Amino acid sequence: MPTAARTSLSLRYADARLAILDQQALPDAERWLDGSDPDEMIGHLHALRVRGAPLLGVAAALCLACLAHDGAGAPALHAAADRLRAARPTAVNLLWAIDRMRPTLAGSPAQIEAEALAIFDEDAALCDAMAAHGAALIADGEGILTHCNTGGLATAGVGTALGVIRRAWESGKKLHVWVDETRPLLQGGRLTTWELGRLGIPHTLLTDSMAAVVMRDGRVQRVLVGADRVAANGDFANKIGTYGVAVLAAHHAVPFHPVAPWSTVDLACADGAGIPIEQRAPAEVRGVTGRADGVGAVRWAPAETPVFNPAFDVTPGTLVTSLVLDTGVVTGADLAAGKLAEHARR
Amino acid sequence: MPTAARTSLSLRYADARLAILDQQALPDAERWLDGSDPDEMIGHLHALRVRGAPLLGVAAALCLACLAHDGAGAPALHAAADRLRAARPTAVNLLWAIDRMRPTLAGSPAQIEAEALAIFDEDAALCDAMAAHGAALIADGEGILTHCNTGGLATAGVGTALGVIRRAWESGKKLHVWVDETRPLLQGGRLTTWELGRLGIPHTLLTDSMAAVVMRDGRVQRVLVGADRVAANGDFANKIGTYGVAVLAAHHAVPFHPVAPWSTVDLACADGAGIPIEQRAPAEVRGVTGRADGVGAVRWAPAETPVFNPAFDVTPGTLVTSLVLDTGVVTGADLAAGKLAEHARR
Repeated sequence: MPTAARTSLSLRYADARLAILDQQALPDAERWLDGSDPDEMIGHLHALRVRGAPLLGVAAALCLACLAHDGAGAPALHAAADRLRAARPTAVNLLWAIDRMRPTLAGSPAQIEAEALAIFDEDAALCDAMAAHGAALIADGEGILTHCNTGGLATAGVGTALGVIRRAWESGKKLHVWVDETRPLLQGGRLTTWELGRLGIPHTLLTDSMAAVVMRDGRVQRVLVGADRVAANGDFANKIGTYGVAVLAAHHAVPFHPVAPWSTVDLACADGAGIPIEQRAPAEVRGVTGRADGVGAVRWAPAETPVFNPAFDVTPGTLVTSLVLDTGVVTGADLAAGKLAEHARR
Repeated sequence: MPTAARTSLSLRYADARLAILDQQALPDAERWLDGSDPDEMIGHLHALRVRGAPLLGVAAALCLACLAHDGAGAPALHAAADRLRAARPTAVNLLWAIDRMRPTLAGSPAQIEAEALAIFDEDAALCDAMAAHGAALIADGEGILTHCNTGGLATAGVGTALGVIRRAWESGKKLHVWVDETRPLLQGGRLTTWELGRLGIPHTLLTDSMAAVVMRDGRVQRVLVGADRVAANGDFANKIGTYGVAVLAAHHAVPFHPVAPWSTVDLACADGAGIPIEQRAPAEVRGVTGRADGVGAVRWAPAETPVFNPAFDVTPGTLVTSLVLDTGVVTGADLAAGKLAEHARR
């Protein structure tokens, strides 16, 4: 039975099989791996071969569609959903997508697939909506600093923060993007540089420790980042290092904007203290890990050095100039006034 | 003719030969290389096999003593001094040590050696003086964040910022050290961890992007860093990333102290704008470089990605709580009032 197909920069779904672009092999190798089996997918999620808050949800939903086409019944589908849901604790999009799939899991494979494809299509559409709202904030000639990777590799569409940048660039605005390398996992150095190079958008890679200087030198007019979970008061979790960038932006009076779809908002979290933060393996900080080909794992610190390695940090809403959602732009003042809920998707 | 000998953590001078501990091979290998030839030494300086602002001057002076014992006359010694002086432009200690050696270069090898040994001995004594002044600032139980490496590997003695920490620890104060890995060259991850491990001082390695979070979580009561050049108004150059740490410390009301010998002060520089900043190779940011054994050079970013790579940044004196010198402690208020010169070594 032929089924529908979808393709994004890092997902290919066709004939009830899901292929994922191995984001640990980038930028040197474009290697596609099978993502049709939930337990293999969980391995991909843990190893960040699939990553990016919105993409986690899309990939997990498509994986459940594959499992349904493979003949799994509702109990097996729910069990797989449970395991997928637990793979990454911070990004609310994964939880949201799994929970959205639940009611369909008793249905036919075609029904389950239809819901997963709807999640895919909606994610791409949400990216377009965020890009339109965010690009309107950007003036011609701006230097924009970004952290981590928030583009076509992180979503099923043009991305969140990087989608905004892309849309502004494609509308004819001259921009220069300052790319934090984003230790420890180097999503900026490996992935954002790769995406910007493909798009032809001028950019410069810097270590995270250099962001302060480019701000002081007047080279950065705006900071755009993604978000993994936004609490009701505007506090938000994002890739480790985001909070530091927010403090630096405030010190240098540089506008600072998280960009995320409404599905990233978790109104059940009153504030950032309620967001669980995933701790990751010490080896990631003692060196670089996770390149399955090419580099391999490299350690430069002493083998037993104690390590701090939270995957995310929480930036207070008070440091947010405005939050760019698919539903519109929420000012920092509105966040402080508790008006985030008014921007809910209808 | 037997000559005097000196040994520090990373220099061994005996029989008119200088050996240097290859700081690019640490922490996995303790490999000693010859540093007796000026042109080889310049290679060591460029490759950061010898590094640390005070140590640069000590090593260059001892190298000239070796050259004198090898029979070089004053013209050859001055020419070597010129080349050594130009090897690293930011650290004033190198310039200071070479200039101090100049008047002796017309003398006998023994006279030249005596001056180099005096520089070595004085550097160790200056470390002790800084350590005493700085340790008095530290309270029992503090968490201290540091950046780069400023210990026995960076000086001929106990170090600058790390010497302060060591002295406080050895005096019985319980401390915990938060070690910025210090991208791109990872002096924190490779060297400070190694030194602290040898000393048995409790510590945790973190990426530079995590410093903000440990400050906000109340785990850091003080920041201690080194300095490569201090201008008359208290602005100072130090390892790239220091300025960002200073901004984060100010935001979190954490006291922030550069620690340096008086020879690091350059009163001829009115402010930080007068300090030349060395730009280094893009490969350092596209991956990790410089491990001659073990890791080798590893690239993770696209091969042609444009890169920003200043070796240092300048922190304004206005962010300095106090400056710890061998001659005493200069408060931020005194720096702002132009009183740094009053702390000159007499």
